Amino acid sequence: MKSKLIAQNGGERAFVLVLDPGDEAFAEISRFAMVHRLGAASLTALGAFSKATVGWFDLAAKSYRKIPVDQQCEVLSGIGDVALDDEGKPSLHMHVVLGLSDGTTRGGHLLEGVVQPTLEVVLTEAPEHLRRTQRPELGLALIDLS
Amino acid sequence: MKSKLIAQNGGERAFVLVLDPGDEAFAEISRFAMVHRLGAASLTALGAFSKATVGWFDLAAKSYRKIPVDQQCEVLSGIGDVALDDEGKPSLHMHVVLGLSDGTTRGGHLLEGVVQPTLEVVLTEAPEHLRRTQRPELGLALIDLS
Amino acid sequence: MKSKLIAQNGGERAFVLVLDPGDEAFAEISRFAMVHRLGAASLTALGAFSKATVGWFDLAAKSYRKIPVDQQCEVLSGIGDVALDDEGKPSLHMHVVLGLSDGTTRGGHLLEGVVQPTLEVVLTEAPEHLRRTQRPELGLALIDLS
Repeated sequence: MKSKLIAQNGGERAFVLVLDPGDEAFAEISRFAMVHRLGAASLTALGAFSKATVGWFDLAAKSYRKIPVDQQCEVLSGIGDVALDDEGKPSLHMHVVLGLSDGTTRGGHLLEGVVQPTLEVVLTEAPEHLRRTQRPELGLALIDLS
Repeated sequence: MKSKLIAQNGGERAFVLVLDPGDEAFAEISRFAMVHRLGAASLTALGAFSKATVGWFDLAAKSYRKIPVDQQCEVLSGIGDVALDDEGKPSLHMHVVLGLSDGTTRGGHLLEGVVQPTLEVVLTEAPEHLRRTQRPELGLALIDLS
Repeated sequence: MKSKLIAQNGGERAFVLVLDPGDEAFAEISRFAMVHRLGAASLTALGAFSKATVGWFDLAAKSYRKIPVDQQCEVLSGIGDVALDDEGKPSLHMHVVLGLSDGTTRGGHLLEGVVQPTLEVVLTEAPEHLRRTQRPELGLALIDLS
């Protein structure tokens, strides 16, 4: 993965991230958020994966049902945000819609996506911080503005 | 719903909105736009709904065909904008892609979506105003830049 | 197509583009990028097409497999970016998810989309330039940050 700062206004910075073949997208974007100590950010992404695993959250089971997409697919949309977790570390939340070879789509909460041949991410950092708090009754961490 | 101003540059403001379980997304985001008197804004969103109704616009009938999605679904993408209507009130236009438990997707013009457990919205207000004008020949209001 | 500058901060400019019935979206947005000499930009879009052709990139064939969507469809999400090509001209890369009349979806790399009745695009230009370099081994041009 490579990145470039493309805009800076006040406390707001915009970056482009370009991921390389074989990069696992969730880990790479998370690592970027850690290295740049992002306290709040939002992103959009497009590109393609050689394979991915997405999730649908099962409220009763309090966990993600894993949905493998084991084929080359276009990343039609990636939408995500970054907030600080209970330990003050940047945490990524990202959803994707994937396009298969026949034009049908699959999608879910991004658990894992292997880039092939590129993923282009535009990430905007905000000067204010956001916090994501673990919610044991749900089995999830949610952004907490209280 | 809670909200937080996360960035401000010149006349541009960025907010994060976090919707609560049971909130109806279209009404809550519209209410936010009214309270903050947004004259022009764009947004992205991700999260999940317990149920939703989306629409496909039938040009012949001049109305939205309603498509119910009566199941827990991930909001894979929400993309929207705010403009002022003929009466000068902020009006929201938003489309969503929803992910079902098997990873297949549904989507349309957002008519109604009940949040469960969260919807995270990043909304950027622009200093210039946009206007949406009723177009009786279509049965729709469209952004009018003339 | 009409356009309006809605925000300007430092070297960053945000535009709204509203496309008209019959406009071919890829050509119109590309033309806008040329006229305004955009060196780097990102965009989101929503609206509807009377018909479209999307692509799934076939790595073995080094070309897009064309997927026609010959029906009125909602543009549920459009996500894209602009970078300069090998000749220094702005080049658009855009993916779409399309919603059919029954709420199912199709999607891919946008090759062609005929607007009906509107497409609303929010495009943010960045002050820094991006470059897209032809990669003969892939049959694609990718953003090159090296």
